[in-house]
Amino acid sequence: KQYRIAVIPGDGIGKEVMPEGLRVLEAAAKKHGVSVHFDHFDFSSWDYYEKHGQMMPDDWKEKIGKHDAIYFGAVGWPAKIPDHVSLWGSLIKFRREFDQYVNLRPVRLMPGVPSPLANRKPGDIDFWVVRENTEGEYSSVGGRMFPDTDREFVTQQTVMTRTGVDRILKFAFELAQSRPKKHLTSATKSNGISITMPYWDERVEAMAKKFPGVKWDKYHIDILTANFVLHPDWFDVVVGSNLFGDILSDLGPACTGTIGIAPSGNINPERNFPSVFEPVHGSAPDIAGQGIANPIGMIWSGAMMFEHLGEKEAGKSIVDAIERTLAERTLRTKDLGGNADTTACGKAVADMVD
Amino acid sequence: KQYRIAVIPGDGIGKEVMPEGLRVLEAAAKKHGVSVHFDHFDFSSWDYYEKHGQMMPDDWKEKIGKHDAIYFGAVGWPAKIPDHVSLWGSLIKFRREFDQYVNLRPVRLMPGVPSPLANRKPGDIDFWVVRENTEGEYSSVGGRMFPDTDREFVTQQTVMTRTGVDRILKFAFELAQSRPKKHLTSATKSNGISITMPYWDERVEAMAKKFPGVKWDKYHIDILTANFVLHPDWFDVVVGSNLFGDILSDLGPACTGTIGIAPSGNINPERNFPSVFEPVHGSAPDIAGQGIANPIGMIWSGAMMFEHLGEKEAGKSIVDAIERTLAERTLRTKDLGGNADTTACGKAVADMVD
Ligand SMILES: CC(C)[C@H](C(=O)O)[C@@H](O)C(=O)O
Ligand SMILES: CC(C)[C@H](C(=O)O)[C@@H](O)C(=O)O
Repeated sequence: KQYRIAVIPGDGIGKEVMPEGLRVLEAAAKKHGVSVHFDHFDFSSWDYYEKHGQMMPDDWKEKIGKHDAIYFGAVGWPAKIPDHVSLWGSLIKFRREFDQYVNLRPVRLMPGVPSPLANRKPGDIDFWVVRENTEGEYSSVGGRMFPDTDREFVTQQTVMTRTGVDRILKFAFELAQSRPKKHLTSATKSNGISITMPYWDERVEAMAKKFPGVKWDKYHIDILTANFVLHPDWFDVVVGSNLFGDILSDLGPACTGTIGIAPSGNINPERNFPSVFEPVHGSAPDIAGQGIANPIGMIWSGAMMFEHLGEKEAGKSIVDAIERTLAERTLRTKDLGGNADTTACGKAVADMVD
Repeated sequence: KQYRIAVIPGDGIGKEVMPEGLRVLEAAAKKHGVSVHFDHFDFSSWDYYEKHGQMMPDDWKEKIGKHDAIYFGAVGWPAKIPDHVSLWGSLIKFRREFDQYVNLRPVRLMPGVPSPLANRKPGDIDFWVVRENTEGEYSSVGGRMFPDTDREFVTQQTVMTRTGVDRILKFAFELAQSRPKKHLTSATKSNGISITMPYWDERVEAMAKKFPGVKWDKYHIDILTANFVLHPDWFDVVVGSNLFGDILSDLGPACTGTIGIAPSGNINPERNFPSVFEPVHGSAPDIAGQGIANPIGMIWSGAMMFEHLGEKEAGKSIVDAIERTLAERTLRTKDLGGNADTTACGKAVADMVD
């Protein structure tokens, strides 16, 4: 079968790292006999917004809703367009309307990447953060009362549904079960947030019964962030709500020194809709246009996309190539102490793929 | 004037570190001519709960509400009594009923304490986390619908009032203004939590106008946790909501290796009610009864209490004594690679006070 991929470079360095992502995907596809077709789209970007007054065409769902996956660069340019317009008009729209209820990110210490943590070596840190991606703290229910007076207040609801919580927990338990350590950690804060968080705990206990082979534990988010720094080797699969997962999936990559190279998947596991694969870094207006952006996050996201499509070998060949590339100082980009530019680094990974 | 301090050791190691805290407070009081009287209370503990079926006597407010401050050990013994009974029945009750709307914690890299971060030395990291302590995400507004069905859901509201947000921001800006760097950082997540968090941002902008001498910036909580690990030297005063402050004030001490020795104040700045000073560590049932607990968190909390009472010199003399004690391996407790027990470490600090 031929996979059809929607390619959306978006803004800023998204446009610069995308060609390298595609280069590596093509190299891996060729080596592993995978057939891929790329369709390019210019929406979900500041340029598009400037011309059309909206982030995406009215028929965006028809345009990209039937693709096997969406390969996404970066969106947002705060100086030109407010975040809530650009992000809620594209990225968060995808998550909700394509029911991408899993946000998945690896936390992995890679060779050649200086970790801010003392005495940690590649292999020591290797886990996944599984984040609920559609509800929880990111609800739009709430409002303001008594505006502009001393009595003013705002409220916003966190919403956890049985459907929403159970399906993300099922995904996380299944992932844990597929890994050698079979260990799941759940993040809550039930001693302070006394209604929603105990509900999540309750559903974890119920789900755990269906996965007797998985060892599980839970931590309050405050001490869990501390343990990411103090004991990153404790973790295997960590699952949390929309907000807690968001925090942990930035903190985790930071602990491995890799925020600039971390990949992510916004996944609809049932494949009723396409999933989105994108680097964790944003559009980075400050370095855009210079050709120095690190393309590894984009490339690694491509590897996750191949794995999601079922092309495990091709996906793994990309991750291996990334590791070999990062191990060579001269092939790394400037942010990692190397002297390669975006293209040179992308070409190096493509050459390493086997 | 003579200060009247309510002393509540609470549970577990709270009872073991309290005598050392008092020893050092007495030593500092003597050297600096401060007059203190201590009243001891056995409530807010598992022992009390076992006898009386509640955490505190009905007239707890009369008993301790007129003291100048409350010196608190630790509460909680999850195996015996659920957290929501012990914590909401004491600690969180104090915060709300004594209007302790500031939770204040130092993040400071101390000599002799191994930091999990590579290449950081004492002096590199030295900032305060200021946490809103009465409202925000820890509201009790919410509930469950359609229980035990597939349609089940729970909601919980975050509540931010103008009064609540403005007063914590004012405290944080004043603290920033009193420090050499005069720098304030605000934690929000306005690109995801789109009602309450933008309101906090709005109030920061309004408050900043009253403090033209203070430089300020803001970060989304996800990247802010990353920056605690990557750039802890960037911060001076960091202010956040009840939840975000909770997270940052565990993560910060973890980055400096000091969760076991970190102090905290639950402060009512207007002094209409007593403030509570307590170590960040809990009752630690696993090591309780062995006499090996590290008393530094308790002692340092005493220093914060003296500063709050206006006895700056006495407070500073304690912090200096802590630094000198920690610098000596033999005077540190086991958790910091030393061989002193709780009492020996406490006596060492008391001797160092000058
Ligand atoms: C015990 C718990 C309710 C408390 C909190 O979250 O406020 C603790 O973590 C703290 O930071 O004092
Ligand atoms: C851009 C923002 C809304 C988003 C989020 O918080 O979900 C981002 O931080 C992420 O993690 O993908």
